[in-house]
Amino acid sequence: MRRNRSQDVIEAAIRVFHKKGYASASIQDVADEVGVLKGSLYHYIESKEDLLARIFEDSAGHFEAMLAEAAALDAPPVERLRSFARDCSLWYLRNIERVGIYVKEWQHLSGKRRKEVVRIRKDYEQKLAGLIGDVKDAGQAGPDLDVDYATYFIFGALNGLPDWYRRRGPDPAEQIADGYAALIVATVAGGSRLESTNPS
Amino acid sequence: MRRNRSQDVIEAAIRVFHKKGYASASIQDVADEVGVLKGSLYHYIESKEDLLARIFEDSAGHFEAMLAEAAALDAPPVERLRSFARDCSLWYLRNIERVGIYVKEWQHLSGKRRKEVVRIRKDYEQKLAGLIGDVKDAGQAGPDLDVDYATYFIFGALNGLPDWYRRRGPDPAEQIADGYAALIVATVAGGSRLESTNPS
Repeated sequence: MRRNRSQDVIEAAIRVFHKKGYASASIQDVADEVGVLKGSLYHYIESKEDLLARIFEDSAGHFEAMLAEAAALDAPPVERLRSFARDCSLWYLRNIERVGIYVKEWQHLSGKRRKEVVRIRKDYEQKLAGLIGDVKDAGQAGPDLDVDYATYFIFGALNGLPDWYRRRGPDPAEQIADGYAALIVATVAGGSRLESTNPS
Repeated sequence: MRRNRSQDVIEAAIRVFHKKGYASASIQDVADEVGVLKGSLYHYIESKEDLLARIFEDSAGHFEAMLAEAAALDAPPVERLRSFARDCSLWYLRNIERVGIYVKEWQHLSGKRRKEVVRIRKDYEQKLAGLIGDVKDAGQAGPDLDVDYATYFIFGALNGLPDWYRRRGPDPAEQIADGYAALIVATVAGGSRLESTNPS
């Protein structure tokens, strides 16, 4: 398979799964979207589930790179976190259909493919938890911050983007990403300031 | 229909949709789960989609009550927000299967039913935005806080709960709810403290 055609198939599958939902979509729909006969798709993919797994694998590299870049920044922990938060929000917004498919459909994967997606997610979570833990170790988060909860909370907030990003109107992606970065930093680092103003 | 049987049907549909996914589940599955013949279910519901809508309607009253209770509290805005955040997290955790169905399946509703769910969601969002706006008006959030973004961000984080709440182990619901309430308050009120320490 030519590299471009392989990418074409993934992009077509994203459009079809986004529009019809994974459960209702068929390989025939994807073939129609690419403009090839259904039989020829099977030269390249094993099944509809295989196609779903490929969509997620295709995203993993980008995500990995954003996390590595933020971790390598020569900047205070809060700024490393802000940088990842902004890049990640922007990437989500620019890949909003595949993010939406991930959020709603990953549980359709089974066996080895499901294990692999769960492993990748765990890896992301540990890396974000690392960035958050650095903020806490630097004394810039509250001592009571639960790093795991903060990690899940933030990924949840990010995964909600496909649901609302166009609802208020056509906000530029950069504006939403800056807003989200500020909220993510506040979630992690804001608590320490609040605790210190409590009468406890 | 006896009130109990009607409730039985909703609870059975929640279990079935949670286990099989809405698209793959059938009215026959729900009838089997209730322990009645498929035909007799049609005395009470029009369609599978009708059942999905009923699940959401059945939750609306509880949610409404939590928001009203928080708004009526005789306490500073931050504490009203914390109270709602804690109650809401706890309710999510105690109704985790129906929350999961809402997050993944609401888009299967069409026409009037979809409009109604969107209207209810908008109502919730406006009420949470009201609680957040009060914190901002009281000068306890940063002046740059975008109340809409904060509202979507927080609902996204809450909607992520079904995905991970059991992943770390059997944390008590109260512990998760307290942790989430602290994160939600930090998201809204933490930013002001951070901005004031910035050299801008």
